Amino acid sequence: MNNKTLKVRFLGGVGEIGKNMTALEFGKDIIVIDAGLTFPSQDMPGIDLVIPDTTYLNENKDRIKGVVLTHGHEDHIGAVPYLLRELNIPVYGTKMTLALLETKLIEFKLKNYKLKRVRPREKITLGCFSVEFINVNHSIAGACALAISTPVGVIVHSGDFKIDMTSPNGEMMDFSRLSEIGKKGVLLLLCESTNVERTGYTMSERVVSETLERLFVTNAKRRIIIATFSSNVNRIQQILKIAEKNKRKVALSGRSMIKVTEAAEKIGELDIPKGIMVDIDRIKNIPDKDLVIISTGTQGEPMSVLTRMAGDDYPQVTITKNDTIIISASPIPGNEKSIFEVINNLYRKGAEVVYEAIENIHVSGHACQEELKIMHSLLKPKFFIPVHGEYRHLKKHVILAKELGMRDYQMLIPDIGDTVLLTEKSMKFGEKFHGGSRFVDGLQIDDSTTYVRDRLHLAEDGLIIALCCISSESGELLQKPDVISKGVVLSDDQTEAIKDIVLKTVQSFDMKALGDTREVKNKIRTSIRNFVIKKTKNNPMILPVITEV
Amino acid sequence: MNNKTLKVRFLGGVGEIGKNMTALEFGKDIIVIDAGLTFPSQDMPGIDLVIPDTTYLNENKDRIKGVVLTHGHEDHIGAVPYLLRELNIPVYGTKMTLALLETKLIEFKLKNYKLKRVRPREKITLGCFSVEFINVNHSIAGACALAISTPVGVIVHSGDFKIDMTSPNGEMMDFSRLSEIGKKGVLLLLCESTNVERTGYTMSERVVSETLERLFVTNAKRRIIIATFSSNVNRIQQILKIAEKNKRKVALSGRSMIKVTEAAEKIGELDIPKGIMVDIDRIKNIPDKDLVIISTGTQGEPMSVLTRMAGDDYPQVTITKNDTIIISASPIPGNEKSIFEVINNLYRKGAEVVYEAIENIHVSGHACQEELKIMHSLLKPKFFIPVHGEYRHLKKHVILAKELGMRDYQMLIPDIGDTVLLTEKSMKFGEKFHGGSRFVDGLQIDDSTTYVRDRLHLAEDGLIIALCCISSESGELLQKPDVISKGVVLSDDQTEAIKDIVLKTVQSFDMKALGDTREVKNKIRTSIRNFVIKKTKNNPMILPVITEV
Repeated sequence: MNNKTLKVRFLGGVGEIGKNMTALEFGKDIIVIDAGLTFPSQDMPGIDLVIPDTTYLNENKDRIKGVVLTHGHEDHIGAVPYLLRELNIPVYGTKMTLALLETKLIEFKLKNYKLKRVRPREKITLGCFSVEFINVNHSIAGACALAISTPVGVIVHSGDFKIDMTSPNGEMMDFSRLSEIGKKGVLLLLCESTNVERTGYTMSERVVSETLERLFVTNAKRRIIIATFSSNVNRIQQILKIAEKNKRKVALSGRSMIKVTEAAEKIGELDIPKGIMVDIDRIKNIPDKDLVIISTGTQGEPMSVLTRMAGDDYPQVTITKNDTIIISASPIPGNEKSIFEVINNLYRKGAEVVYEAIENIHVSGHACQEELKIMHSLLKPKFFIPVHGEYRHLKKHVILAKELGMRDYQMLIPDIGDTVLLTEKSMKFGEKFHGGSRFVDGLQIDDSTTYVRDRLHLAEDGLIIALCCISSESGELLQKPDVISKGVVLSDDQTEAIKDIVLKTVQSFDMKALGDTREVKNKIRTSIRNFVIKKTKNNPMILPVITEV
Repeated sequence: MNNKTLKVRFLGGVGEIGKNMTALEFGKDIIVIDAGLTFPSQDMPGIDLVIPDTTYLNENKDRIKGVVLTHGHEDHIGAVPYLLRELNIPVYGTKMTLALLETKLIEFKLKNYKLKRVRPREKITLGCFSVEFINVNHSIAGACALAISTPVGVIVHSGDFKIDMTSPNGEMMDFSRLSEIGKKGVLLLLCESTNVERTGYTMSERVVSETLERLFVTNAKRRIIIATFSSNVNRIQQILKIAEKNKRKVALSGRSMIKVTEAAEKIGELDIPKGIMVDIDRIKNIPDKDLVIISTGTQGEPMSVLTRMAGDDYPQVTITKNDTIIISASPIPGNEKSIFEVINNLYRKGAEVVYEAIENIHVSGHACQEELKIMHSLLKPKFFIPVHGEYRHLKKHVILAKELGMRDYQMLIPDIGDTVLLTEKSMKFGEKFHGGSRFVDGLQIDDSTTYVRDRLHLAEDGLIIALCCISSESGELLQKPDVISKGVVLSDDQTEAIKDIVLKTVQSFDMKALGDTREVKNKIRTSIRNFVIKKTKNNPMILPVITEV
């Protein structure tokens, strides 16, 4: 027995879906589990990506022993390049995970990075921690749970997982090793919560195979286009097999689809039948019945291949009445409108479209309730913290664990920036640390939300600029004020009225006597706002500009 | 047999969900079926409502005999006030429909409107048209299909409907009358398509009753808050009954909830048990176990009661650990993020939340595939046009009709602005007319999409304003140019560089020789854009402003 305390730091992935990142800290040693990104929601206009704020790690960079990655999806590895730009630390993961990561690192022009390949059941030592990788099922090869031996006890992180007895790549979750670890005693389980609201079990990936096989038969004379996540290598493998069986050539479209497929083939995680591939630029002479196109764009992303095909904006592929488009993915909440718009446009071109609402053409990669219960039951942890989910998911996961016999004192629901203090006998919240989100916008990264707030204001109500030019000598207006508006509907009369308001406001001040113009600007802003709200019920951003000449 | 032609004009509700509106035109007579609105999608920032563009009706106002309303939901009656502001025409509907409409007309301060109450099975004559209202089930009382006798034959419009054999308000769809009409011969069926992607039947509203009854028992000691659509009067009726049975008082919150309930009670469509109601401002002394609050806010709307409760911004109700919040509605696609945020916040306050993902706490008001088939089979129309749906729904509905034996020449899929020419023997597309959307933004209505596009641009990438002040006499710059940015992240160096770009650009022109400054402005815009894209990969709106003094 010892009274030592380990700190679990939540940098992301709790209270939200995405950008998963957790750190374990004991004594002088820190290890990081995953470093993912999130795609922005509708209330972050113009933002490209969201990554965890890693101030805490930067401040402790000399103590970090390494980053361990559970699997190669964006929400687990997408922030690694940003992290490695600032910190030179080794990264550990399975073959597939590192292959996907490396394509990113090359794109970021990073050099001298240290990627260390780990095999399932292999153990690595990082300071006082020893990390064992344990195979689980998920929608990508090389997905692992982590069993981490620490000075206070064993911590298991589930990673993203499901249980698939008939996985197409043949490997099942390593029940045997997990149950051994459970028997030896687990101090803390960190378990994903994505599908905790769903009863029962997640269907096997094999269900998708069966649907696809049937669709290939019923569409034997038609061209088939299948959109799926490029990271879903299992799915791509299945499509390749079925294409081969049906004697169809396969063309890949979409940059990430080509990149991921190349990386997966290179390391032997994707078996591409000989001679099956054809370049998307050379499909013109292949009869419809002999071709499958695999594309990106399942979420209706504006620049994705499928969206461009539907909008007649993808020169290599023109959609016709002889096309059957299969969308083999679920809409991520918030993307429904965009993807349905793509589907509508494909239908308008006379194509057939098959999607989840009407066929079993996608299965989740995450554990449903019964699978979560199996994970809990195998490991029988002393303490439990649900991760990977919005608050409602984490809460539901706690309720589920209660049904399995856990008590309130054994569980905590953390938020980003929370530290959990763990000893052999207790778990409680410790100090908060600086955590949150950073926005990636083009080439820039910013912690500030001011400019996002500005954008939202501009988007909601538009902008009015009021311009005055005054003489710095006399303080008098040199011209009638001008008004420019964008994203606001103002009649000519209203624009003239606003000019008058500015004129009268400026004239009501002794401009010459004023040290600065802040007060005048505030008055102009208030006067215009009152006028515009009264006339239009809108509240645009108002920018008074006073130029002194 | 005659060779006369009737025109069906689609003003809304096809190729989209919402703002349903169709017109029938024969000779000099026009009638309008429904006049609904839509709530804006995420790509229409700051817009409050969307209504159909009714230019065609305004141009033919003397020919319009009346508006007939199928039922009282916003997407069927919401645009009537806007229509009546411009056209003085009579409006026909059932008691409940007109009661809801009238609350709107009063709010719009309209006078001298002509509302004509119609009973199910009643027929009204409007020019050469005779319209019979036929009872159907839906999530509101007084919902009707319309059987319209015209000089070319009978046209049936389904309105929104489902088939509910155990409807809580006791009335079932009028199978008998529909089948009579079918036997006599239907020329054209216009049928709603909302749930055409769903197999089987829509569950009865009674399922919701059963779930609610159980939840009242399992939450006997807790305060219960139920959020639902204010227009779902059936649902409100059920809650009142169950509250009475469980000896709880009921408080209503939300303006529309109070308005609709009042209107429904006044006309006898809502039976409020005596003494059950309590004002939301007077609930402080009522024990939790004796109270139910019925509120609006099922879609996570920012200003709705439920969102405000979850955000501690609704003084009358403070959420506690003893609250069970039941969200008795489905998220409308696009609203998922907002409503889940509300749910997360309610959980954070320790409350229990029950929503559709985890309980049968909502049923749709729309017919699924088998119910649609019943409608088709009862009426056996010669021609069929699917309405109320995005293109994918309309397409699916055509496929469903084909399964029932219809042929391609008997069906058309229209878009807004399409005219369909109907004779006794044929149906084909006619001329296009001016149709589309109008945006309601505060007090203004606008056809233009320019300002919405401006807002989206501002939201995506922000704004840079470049200001120069030049002498109108010498053409020289009177000051170093100034740069203002909003919603863009620029470093101080970058801002200075942009100022220099503007300076050099202006100096490169002979300003005195220029008649107007358009060319200079364009050059400034291009130069700044090139610089900013290179440095930030962003493409902000750029506004060069040149003041001549």
